[in-house]
Amino acid sequence: MAMLRLEIATRGQGLYEFTEAARDFLRESDAVNGVMTVFVRHTSCSLLIQENADPSVQRDLKAFFRRLVPPTTDPAMDYITHRDEGPDDMPAHIKAALLPVSLSIPFAEQRLLLGTWQGLYLFEHRNSPHRREVVLHV
Amino acid sequence: MAMLRLEIATRGQGLYEFTEAARDFLRESDAVNGVMTVFVRHTSCSLLIQENADPSVQRDLKAFFRRLVPPTTDPAMDYITHRDEGPDDMPAHIKAALLPVSLSIPFAEQRLLLGTWQGLYLFEHRNSPHRREVVLHV
Amino acid sequence: MAMLRLEIATRGQGLYEFTEAARDFLRESDAVNGVMTVFVRHTSCSLLIQENADPSVQRDLKAFFRRLVPPTTDPAMDYITHRDEGPDDMPAHIKAALLPVSLSIPFAEQRLLLGTWQGLYLFEHRNSPHRREVVLHV
Repeated sequence: MAMLRLEIATRGQGLYEFTEAARDFLRESDAVNGVMTVFVRHTSCSLLIQENADPSVQRDLKAFFRRLVPPTTDPAMDYITHRDEGPDDMPAHIKAALLPVSLSIPFAEQRLLLGTWQGLYLFEHRNSPHRREVVLHV
Repeated sequence: MAMLRLEIATRGQGLYEFTEAARDFLRESDAVNGVMTVFVRHTSCSLLIQENADPSVQRDLKAFFRRLVPPTTDPAMDYITHRDEGPDDMPAHIKAALLPVSLSIPFAEQRLLLGTWQGLYLFEHRNSPHRREVVLHV
Repeated sequence: MAMLRLEIATRGQGLYEFTEAARDFLRESDAVNGVMTVFVRHTSCSLLIQENADPSVQRDLKAFFRRLVPPTTDPAMDYITHRDEGPDDMPAHIKAALLPVSLSIPFAEQRLLLGTWQGLYLFEHRNSPHRREVVLHV
């Protein structure tokens, strides 16, 4: 059993890859076969496994979620009551409900069984810089 | 290894917190470090980790999902064919697809590594009272 | 510990059940009590636990997600920039973000603790046939 608390510094909404940090952690643990659990300790950012090849995928993902859950300054969000922490705060909570807070990734012979195009990301939903904590466990 | 089948009685759509029941279960098990699995055995309610501080967050979450997936009496849902079990049934299945059915939460020294603001909820999507079963495993 | 790499051949968008394959794998392993991890190694299809009784539920689920994330030929998707791989590709990535890539299902006495109506599915988001790989681990 090994556990790592990984800190990720974010600079506004977007995807922050940490696939290599997860691979390093697995390599340094004694675990050979099993499952890695990934858990994010916040309610205004998410985890995401997505394509790591073409940057347009990440741009479009961000655009889709911004349209699905716009800032509360958008008239479509007039019904939102939680407004004290800024126009990006309640949309961040909603996106954190829609996207994963935990992931379980099998590994074999010390290698994560991610597919060829799968990268591991923190998806930051807030505008201002944040320090986020992700727990990795094998 | 320890397992608990937790029964939660719901009284209509909304969030029902069970963070304390999960903490109690962990304390009473022999597990010190590891991962707690949470699994809900239904297709018309969900699990959710969300902010447990300000009740307006929960009100807005409910409002968002009611707008994203309205009852089938709403003209926007005219294309829905599964209608025999009431106007809240198919929307409940859709919300159960969009929101988590299982969660994996690491713990260390017998303490769940939830973030400061993270609470553990059952999100009921049906209007009438239900008895829901959540399986906790460490 | 046991692991299976399950291949699922898909023939266009829709739900492909593999509940029986998961039950067979569990029966053939030595595991009695624990958690099964299910992980899909792709970024354009998803896992889903949903009702396996009434086919209208699956039809409506497909219809909902097609409306929420239409093909990029739909004017509502004009903002999408990732278009080289066809009108169903970027919507597939978005649906793969919205729906689960991993599931954790407890089992007891060699029986998966799925609810009465819960079936285990691969949700294919692409139009053309694909060979998909799902990793099962107990």
